[in-house]
Amino acid sequence: MTGDDHPWKSDWTVGLRVWAERAGRTILGKGRLELLEGIDRWHSISEAARQMGMSYRRAWLLVQSVNEAAGAALVEAATGGSHGGGARLTPLGRQALDVFRELQDELHGTAAAVLQRLV
Amino acid sequence: MTGDDHPWKSDWTVGLRVWAERAGRTILGKGRLELLEGIDRWHSISEAARQMGMSYRRAWLLVQSVNEAAGAALVEAATGGSHGGGARLTPLGRQALDVFRELQDELHGTAAAVLQRLV
Repeated sequence: MTGDDHPWKSDWTVGLRVWAERAGRTILGKGRLELLEGIDRWHSISEAARQMGMSYRRAWLLVQSVNEAAGAALVEAATGGSHGGGARLTPLGRQALDVFRELQDELHGTAAAVLQRLV
Repeated sequence: MTGDDHPWKSDWTVGLRVWAERAGRTILGKGRLELLEGIDRWHSISEAARQMGMSYRRAWLLVQSVNEAAGAALVEAATGGSHGGGARLTPLGRQALDVFRELQDELHGTAAAVLQRLV
């Protein structure tokens, strides 16, 4: 290694993607996490979708996909009204979200620490 | 949380993808790492490609992409012969590989530790 070569150049960055899956199907990832956080906040799939600039239909399908992939409901949607009668996270849903957020935070922390230490 | 709800179900797994990039272009990821490890081992792009079941053309293009994205050569390919006259990692290339492998290992370790602790 010559004097000007550093093992990790200052303009290199690390990309990181983390997701939870079951039997090859995605349960949670960045977008699904954001949607579920919105549902937890607004108690409404349509409002959570609107805040993300996502169509209600797409958000509704994502929620179905989350629940089906998880093998247990993370979101409970009440029926009724044109856009449903509200929605909320199940206890399992909220706890899964907490674990996933912690996982994301720790992974980003690890990546930063490794680069700090090695570079 | 009811007795049967666990925050992270035993059949849920965590997926993790990590890559190095510069200005939005991928330098290293899982496949590129494997290719560069092969080049380091065989001192030949064509042999490294063959071991991965990858065409020589695709491997050669990947090497160009690695070097261009990095903004500095990680692989040096000698010219000559039908498939070139051998190739090797530069000192920067070997060190970048070491850092990246360490990063991957620590991230997988962190993911396992978080799930162990929280679940």
